[in-house]
Amino acid sequence: MKRGFGSDNHSGISPEVLTAIASANVDHALAYGDDEYCARTTELFRREFGATAQPYFVFNGTGANVMCIDAMCRSHHAVVCAETAHINVDECGAPQRIVGCRLLPVKTPDGKLTPELVMTQLHGFGFEHHSQPRAISITQPTELGTLYTLDEIRALADLAHKYNMYIHLDGARLANAAVALGCTFKQMTTDCGIDCLSFGGTKNGLMMGESAVMLNPTLDVELKYRRKQMTQLCSKMRFMAAQFEAYLSTGLWRRNAEHSNQMARLLHSKVANVAGVEVVYPVQANSVFVRLPREVWTALQKDYFFYDWDEADNVVRWMCSFDTTEADIEDFVAKLRSHLDNYRNR
Amino acid sequence: MKRGFGSDNHSGISPEVLTAIASANVDHALAYGDDEYCARTTELFRREFGATAQPYFVFNGTGANVMCIDAMCRSHHAVVCAETAHINVDECGAPQRIVGCRLLPVKTPDGKLTPELVMTQLHGFGFEHHSQPRAISITQPTELGTLYTLDEIRALADLAHKYNMYIHLDGARLANAAVALGCTFKQMTTDCGIDCLSFGGTKNGLMMGESAVMLNPTLDVELKYRRKQMTQLCSKMRFMAAQFEAYLSTGLWRRNAEHSNQMARLLHSKVANVAGVEVVYPVQANSVFVRLPREVWTALQKDYFFYDWDEADNVVRWMCSFDTTEADIEDFVAKLRSHLDNYRNR
Amino acid sequence: MKRGFGSDNHSGISPEVLTAIASANVDHALAYGDDEYCARTTELFRREFGATAQPYFVFNGTGANVMCIDAMCRSHHAVVCAETAHINVDECGAPQRIVGCRLLPVKTPDGKLTPELVMTQLHGFGFEHHSQPRAISITQPTELGTLYTLDEIRALADLAHKYNMYIHLDGARLANAAVALGCTFKQMTTDCGIDCLSFGGTKNGLMMGESAVMLNPTLDVELKYRRKQMTQLCSKMRFMAAQFEAYLSTGLWRRNAEHSNQMARLLHSKVANVAGVEVVYPVQANSVFVRLPREVWTALQKDYFFYDWDEADNVVRWMCSFDTTEADIEDFVAKLRSHLDNYRNR
Amino acid sequence: MKRGFGSDNHSGISPEVLTAIASANVDHALAYGDDEYCARTTELFRREFGATAQPYFVFNGTGANVMCIDAMCRSHHAVVCAETAHINVDECGAPQRIVGCRLLPVKTPDGKLTPELVMTQLHGFGFEHHSQPRAISITQPTELGTLYTLDEIRALADLAHKYNMYIHLDGARLANAAVALGCTFKQMTTDCGIDCLSFGGTKNGLMMGESAVMLNPTLDVELKYRRKQMTQLCSKMRFMAAQFEAYLSTGLWRRNAEHSNQMARLLHSKVANVAGVEVVYPVQANSVFVRLPREVWTALQKDYFFYDWDEADNVVRWMCSFDTTEADIEDFVAKLRSHLDNYRNR
Repeated sequence: MKRGFGSDNHSGISPEVLTAIASANVDHALAYGDDEYCARTTELFRREFGATAQPYFVFNGTGANVMCIDAMCRSHHAVVCAETAHINVDECGAPQRIVGCRLLPVKTPDGKLTPELVMTQLHGFGFEHHSQPRAISITQPTELGTLYTLDEIRALADLAHKYNMYIHLDGARLANAAVALGCTFKQMTTDCGIDCLSFGGTKNGLMMGESAVMLNPTLDVELKYRRKQMTQLCSKMRFMAAQFEAYLSTGLWRRNAEHSNQMARLLHSKVANVAGVEVVYPVQANSVFVRLPREVWTALQKDYFFYDWDEADNVVRWMCSFDTTEADIEDFVAKLRSHLDNYRNR
Repeated sequence: MKRGFGSDNHSGISPEVLTAIASANVDHALAYGDDEYCARTTELFRREFGATAQPYFVFNGTGANVMCIDAMCRSHHAVVCAETAHINVDECGAPQRIVGCRLLPVKTPDGKLTPELVMTQLHGFGFEHHSQPRAISITQPTELGTLYTLDEIRALADLAHKYNMYIHLDGARLANAAVALGCTFKQMTTDCGIDCLSFGGTKNGLMMGESAVMLNPTLDVELKYRRKQMTQLCSKMRFMAAQFEAYLSTGLWRRNAEHSNQMARLLHSKVANVAGVEVVYPVQANSVFVRLPREVWTALQKDYFFYDWDEADNVVRWMCSFDTTEADIEDFVAKLRSHLDNYRNR
Repeated sequence: MKRGFGSDNHSGISPEVLTAIASANVDHALAYGDDEYCARTTELFRREFGATAQPYFVFNGTGANVMCIDAMCRSHHAVVCAETAHINVDECGAPQRIVGCRLLPVKTPDGKLTPELVMTQLHGFGFEHHSQPRAISITQPTELGTLYTLDEIRALADLAHKYNMYIHLDGARLANAAVALGCTFKQMTTDCGIDCLSFGGTKNGLMMGESAVMLNPTLDVELKYRRKQMTQLCSKMRFMAAQFEAYLSTGLWRRNAEHSNQMARLLHSKVANVAGVEVVYPVQANSVFVRLPREVWTALQKDYFFYDWDEADNVVRWMCSFDTTEADIEDFVAKLRSHLDNYRNR
Repeated sequence: MKRGFGSDNHSGISPEVLTAIASANVDHALAYGDDEYCARTTELFRREFGATAQPYFVFNGTGANVMCIDAMCRSHHAVVCAETAHINVDECGAPQRIVGCRLLPVKTPDGKLTPELVMTQLHGFGFEHHSQPRAISITQPTELGTLYTLDEIRALADLAHKYNMYIHLDGARLANAAVALGCTFKQMTTDCGIDCLSFGGTKNGLMMGESAVMLNPTLDVELKYRRKQMTQLCSKMRFMAAQFEAYLSTGLWRRNAEHSNQMARLLHSKVANVAGVEVVYPVQANSVFVRLPREVWTALQKDYFFYDWDEADNVVRWMCSFDTTEADIEDFVAKLRSHLDNYRNR
């Protein structure tokens, strides 16, 4: 595979990030986070998310999500989430194994929770046979490429707090949401009442690095031990911090996300009116979900790798990256059109 | 901190490794291990450890150790280890939380288990109140810088197998052991009967990357799911594989380890006869453990970072890295001598 | 509360069971199951379920269910169950905490899984991001008082086995199902392909005692350690075995279940045609689910304790026990009619 | 086996307890603890342990111990205990599996911790690689039949609190300790600063029933959910409460414990001066530990069941129960003497 639309983690490392790693590669540094790179990068997170923010650098999104759930919940608690949430369907049960809690997944039309949908799960409080609802988890942008507005986030946060619950935001692609909504990270999280978030870097140009960020200080209790115990403490942490420093200090996050969003819009515009292709969710970030004939998408997969999303329903996902080019899209669409022609003329 | 003797993970990235990362940074690659880098590197592991070897790349040593324990044990099992073992004292209870099993730590004079020491824990088989001994775990070189001979490893492996148990080797610094013993990885592990091992790279020049390697195929059951579930699945895995490829294909592991071992011998030779300094364990790999007056080591820590190992006993650890220089050592020893002089003349 | 329709565990101990406990209270017996009572009772289970049956006596239904799931699954596995299953909604997340696995709950019209409903969850095999479907769990009779036919059970077992999965039956009220279907325990479980079951006693006249019964010998591996480790090993086990001995050897299970089923039918017949009362599920075992005006059921709860089942939908559950009398039912229905009259005339 | 010295859980049910169960067997009662028996018995616990005491009835000692550890610790914490502690050697790793924490076992001469011994484990505070010491657990009387004085308990509690730790007391045989020391339960626990305890009933005449008792209200947070989730919630709880009511309200606990202690003293007095028998621990409660020739104890085990305690050292344990008679002891000692004679004359 050379290039494709499989995932934004199929792309490589942004040049600026690689340079930052190389620049940090001098002399010695204390391990496990007690170094100047981590100190500086922590300040950058506070600049982006507010003074209460405490980032915990972790290796991957599973680590960030599980660490946030672990900060909010003990094993007898439950987390309300969309049925399509990554924590529900794509972590191989990591929250259940490591935190021991339940998830309460809710079917949604577009990957987005609403207060009404959450309310269907808010019962059994005080009843010892029932896992106690303790947190709401939303993904922004969602796994279906859709976006919550700031008001929608705030409404869910208010609901959580009304029930003495917390709210977590899975922001594996938070940069894509921020540029799409034209807001800051803080406006979309801290200012809306988000208690903690998973902040992604890997899918937007880092080599590897995510961060579990505590925004509500009451959650930030003895977490350093729990990060270590869940196997997510990095030794040469300076190289993780250096990546985030490049990402946050130079606007790289914005440039990369703007580009991948723009590529998705371009791809969308080129297929929206093509007969046989049905775009199934609003294209609001860097992914395009389409329904098309099985013969077509399976043929196209021989040219370009991408995932079927719902095989039974012939829905597939095309994901753009910070390094997707217009030429990639033109060639991809040309091949798509060719397979569609063949399909019609078969 | 600029340079020091704190830990071999205070050093940075070997230039060859950084080059390999940059070289792998072209186009797209499938995530999660389904790429050509991982395929090639898996073959390199088989060349080094034998045809049955199956490496699982993970982020850190905790991940490798927990994954190996998870492959050998269920929660009602127990692992016999030295009291000083990293899995016992330096993982913040990760095996207990993630695997749910017990460790059976044994006091040792020098960090090394013996069949006699292991036998003290091999009882209660079949008794349901007692966690069932299921594995032995040894560290090579040990956390005290000492080495098992091949015969000693074989004797422990034979004991394990005689009791239908497995044997794991924590090889966070396996390269240092291999060059010290003048043997291959395979001779020290597979050929001795080791069932699985944690193979370290980070402490010997990688940016970040370790590997849980299954040597006994009966252990290699559904582990990919369990790696994911314990949060240790890397998305842009090609960059982890590329590091190991540089490490194994070019002899980098050997060059780096030979250097750090040699620096430790040099450091040892320069302090062995210094009055007031007592070397407490044989210097067989890249660390030197010494006992010296508290006033001296605390003063020296202001010049160079290093860890006290047993504060009550005034034992400290000096660790050499692949990038330690003779000049580092000369300056360090000069400062040590100066503090000793001050101490005697106080 | 004196008498009511709250639950079959609100009733007490069958006299025959109390007598058996008293009879076993002589001299000493080995603890933890190595006694003659356990040996005899194990044989009784084999007589009822077939020669391969291995019962593990446990304290309660949660223990039996978790032990069965633990026998079938490791943490990266998943269990398909009805959304209304006790393991899903009434164990406070015990399977998640103790086994660490996922449940895959499916909405059903009547508490019963079908092959079609199960199939909606059978995907993602081999995909490491997805908990691997490993077992189906059904409840007989269901939590809604409905029954699977033998053919329906067999079809689900066949489906499980076709996908190399196991099938568990939660039989907290298995006796009620057996008398309702007019079949033996073996015909309903072993002969249909059930791999393991939770066999209840407490709800049908025991003081306390359930059993996790392995029918498929491949599941019976080192379970005694795991029962102990999950806190379910009883010391004075003879008193648990003695209860089951009385239950199974004298036909007590049948007499009690026939009676409670009959009482449910009687209750059903007396309310089926009452205006304002809507029976919402077929009455096939010992429970009656009805929809009636909120003012009526809350008023009736002041006379008799029972649970609302779906408060939003005004559905309540009336459960009959082995000690429910016709007089109980007559008085209950009279009070119900009186509250309905008041409601209509308000 | 008819009668013996194997364990105090080889004995049966005190007649008063069986009567109490039968008396509670009338009509219906709410399940899971919301009944009058539980309310009354909770008050009895408060009378015995002070107004802050909150008992949680559980099925067995493992359940009580794990629930107490779960109340004190999260998974990154550690519990200092004697190496011989039941939680360390006789729970098959239940604390590790269910709480996920570490135990820090300490060798002791007589089963008793001292502040000095505990101090050997109190290090690494704030160091994220090290499980954080969070609790001390002591057993009273110890697994070796020895007793802490009130001053000794207080000194350990003071040490725990000085380090912001908790202290748990495993009182599986607390009644035997209370009568031996001539003090109340409260004097031995609450007044000494104990934060929570496992209060045993089964070994002193109950059919089955233990209690995890929170004395420090800061520990009593959401525990009812956690009891349920760890499978320890009893449905027909009235029968567990009724047993404790008989136990505490009538002085039964005292009568039974006085008797079993007296029987142990009698047994001790009859063997103390017998040549070939060496009593190895002070006889302070209801057990006698002796060293004697292997041929003798293995021959004696054919007459009477009892456990070898340290097979390699030829130490065995003889345990007296509430129902041990002087005739039992006379016959046992006679047989012992006979085997000793045979041994000498062999």
